[in-house]
Amino acid sequence: LHYSIAVIPGDGIGPEVMQEGLKVLKALEESHGGIRFASDVMEWNCNYYLTHGRMMPENGLDTLKDYDLILLGAVGAPEVPDHVSVWELILPIRREFQQYVNLRPVKLLRGLESPLRYKGHADLDFVVVRENTEGEYSNMGGRMHQGTPYEMAVQNNVFTRFGTERILKYAFSLAEKRPGKRLTAATKSNGINHSMPFWDEIVKEIAREHPGVETNLYHIDALAAYFITRPETFDVVVASNLFGDILTDLGAATVGGLGLAPSANINPERKYPSMFEPIHGSAPDIAGKGIANPIAQIWSLAMMMDHLDLPEISAVIMNAIEQVLVDRKILTPDLGGVASTKEVGDEIVRHIYTA
Amino acid sequence: LHYSIAVIPGDGIGPEVMQEGLKVLKALEESHGGIRFASDVMEWNCNYYLTHGRMMPENGLDTLKDYDLILLGAVGAPEVPDHVSVWELILPIRREFQQYVNLRPVKLLRGLESPLRYKGHADLDFVVVRENTEGEYSNMGGRMHQGTPYEMAVQNNVFTRFGTERILKYAFSLAEKRPGKRLTAATKSNGINHSMPFWDEIVKEIAREHPGVETNLYHIDALAAYFITRPETFDVVVASNLFGDILTDLGAATVGGLGLAPSANINPERKYPSMFEPIHGSAPDIAGKGIANPIAQIWSLAMMMDHLDLPEISAVIMNAIEQVLVDRKILTPDLGGVASTKEVGDEIVRHIYTA
Ligand SMILES: CC(C)[C@H](C(=O)O)[C@@H](O)C(=O)O
Ligand SMILES: CC(C)[C@H](C(=O)O)[C@@H](O)C(=O)O
Repeated sequence: LHYSIAVIPGDGIGPEVMQEGLKVLKALEESHGGIRFASDVMEWNCNYYLTHGRMMPENGLDTLKDYDLILLGAVGAPEVPDHVSVWELILPIRREFQQYVNLRPVKLLRGLESPLRYKGHADLDFVVVRENTEGEYSNMGGRMHQGTPYEMAVQNNVFTRFGTERILKYAFSLAEKRPGKRLTAATKSNGINHSMPFWDEIVKEIAREHPGVETNLYHIDALAAYFITRPETFDVVVASNLFGDILTDLGAATVGGLGLAPSANINPERKYPSMFEPIHGSAPDIAGKGIANPIAQIWSLAMMMDHLDLPEISAVIMNAIEQVLVDRKILTPDLGGVASTKEVGDEIVRHIYTA
Repeated sequence: LHYSIAVIPGDGIGPEVMQEGLKVLKALEESHGGIRFASDVMEWNCNYYLTHGRMMPENGLDTLKDYDLILLGAVGAPEVPDHVSVWELILPIRREFQQYVNLRPVKLLRGLESPLRYKGHADLDFVVVRENTEGEYSNMGGRMHQGTPYEMAVQNNVFTRFGTERILKYAFSLAEKRPGKRLTAATKSNGINHSMPFWDEIVKEIAREHPGVETNLYHIDALAAYFITRPETFDVVVASNLFGDILTDLGAATVGGLGLAPSANINPERKYPSMFEPIHGSAPDIAGKGIANPIAQIWSLAMMMDHLDLPEISAVIMNAIEQVLVDRKILTPDLGGVASTKEVGDEIVRHIYTA
């Protein structure tokens, strides 16, 4: 088994957590005979932008296309507006490579306590399927009447039947395969009266093709509240690009924070590489201190292994992470510890070797 | 002091909680010599729609305009699509009457426990200022290619300088008057690249006019997470229509649920009536059972008193509510009790008389 990986460490804490991720890949190779990850590091980030005026080379996407997988750290720096760094690197990859499924588990790992009173591990174990290529993140729109009191900005939310059907089909199939067989779709058709009723219609259509799946459609405001009051009722949650973004940060907060939240950007047809990344950003405020939690990045590797149909290797990674959390001895400050990024990475690697 | 109130009980539990609200108004009149509320009930709701094909009479807004205040219960019924019931009643009132400020406190009352572990009363006491007339709730947009695989829906988010400036000015002035003097603005300019960078620019402009206010701009995904992990850092949170909607349901969940969350739709210029309502919907699932929590509706009356510059009367209402919560004897099922809507209303009224 041989896989090529394009590694984009990015900015801020991105390279710091990536280093631990790469150590894990190496440990997996060494401990599991026969598996090889050939990784090339791409130094495409805000520094690159400040020198070259763009976030990646003109043929960047072409270069990436030849890899089996993409591993991303985090992108963004104070000197470059977010809508530049993100719109010229992460979003084109998600979109051009048709990584229309963004999978984000909301799962309380062993050893961790939820900030939600009375909620434990059994209550917090579901997955959010986020649409990743269209919807509220569209580059359609603009401004008029600049410099006058009548100035205005318009942003188009674009929902296609094609884009909506494919994400819902994926989510329903996933729900069908899970023991819970429950799907919750986020909407806001009471307030947003063109795109969201359209989304609801397609939810109902696809639901009819999956009679074995119990389906609920909740408005995003109520759904966000339910993430706090009854997370145990969720199994698969499917949401548009923006709603999925909000729900997954919220979900992450309920299971220990962004330092623990991974994300897989999947092209289910496997025509293009899929991309794995932590949900967190580049966190300029703690960058350079060596205290970022590497677990989200390392968990994203477990998602990569699942994508490669290597569930045993995924389990090795997850067990190693959970052992470190259960021990509670070597934890980064976000989890109340005093360990460094590297120390946590080393400890996870140690558990991989002894698995 | 004489005020005219247009009362719209609405659907489902709306009329049930409204009945308790009206009892409170009567108790205030009887216990506070010199104050009079003249209320007229408008039976505009989904039943009205099923008979007349519209949610309110053609001259409905004209009728409302002559009142000092509007008191709403909740609107919506399974037989009528939400985007009809809401778009023909609540949203036209908010918009036509320039109720561009939607004030929503996130405050843990005495007697209640937050579902957030380690967070108590001192941690949960802030206010969300939601833009209430434009943004993501626009009726601009539509569909094309219906009935084909190329079908699509587009929804325009419309942000005007006028609309954005006025809500931000209100929020900054409010922050300036509060002891905390902190303002947090919700954005998503990293993913939504036309409207949100525009919003950010205006936030920064207005911030410059209020140097005494400590200002933070957070992406909505991170901000939702912070509502869970560090609610104690918020004082005034200002957000667009959709973001404010999501944040306030989420905020409500952290302080006891939607049964306790009030909302004031304010026209600061007082050219038009302002409207007071609970955040919750008509809850068809529990309608008719007499178990809805009337506190959100009654708290909305306290907000009405604040709007009328009657802070002592507002305090009487809030104290009555908190005494009932502290006693823990007469509570509706959402708070773990077995009392009815009416019993809770009666108890609050009793405390108003003995205040
Ligand atoms: C009914 C719905 C359109 C409304 C809104 O989203 O504004 C409600 O959720 C609210 O928060 O008042
Ligand atoms: C950086 C930003 C545009 C991105 C998103 O909103 O998709 C991030 O928040 C995420 O969730 O991956």
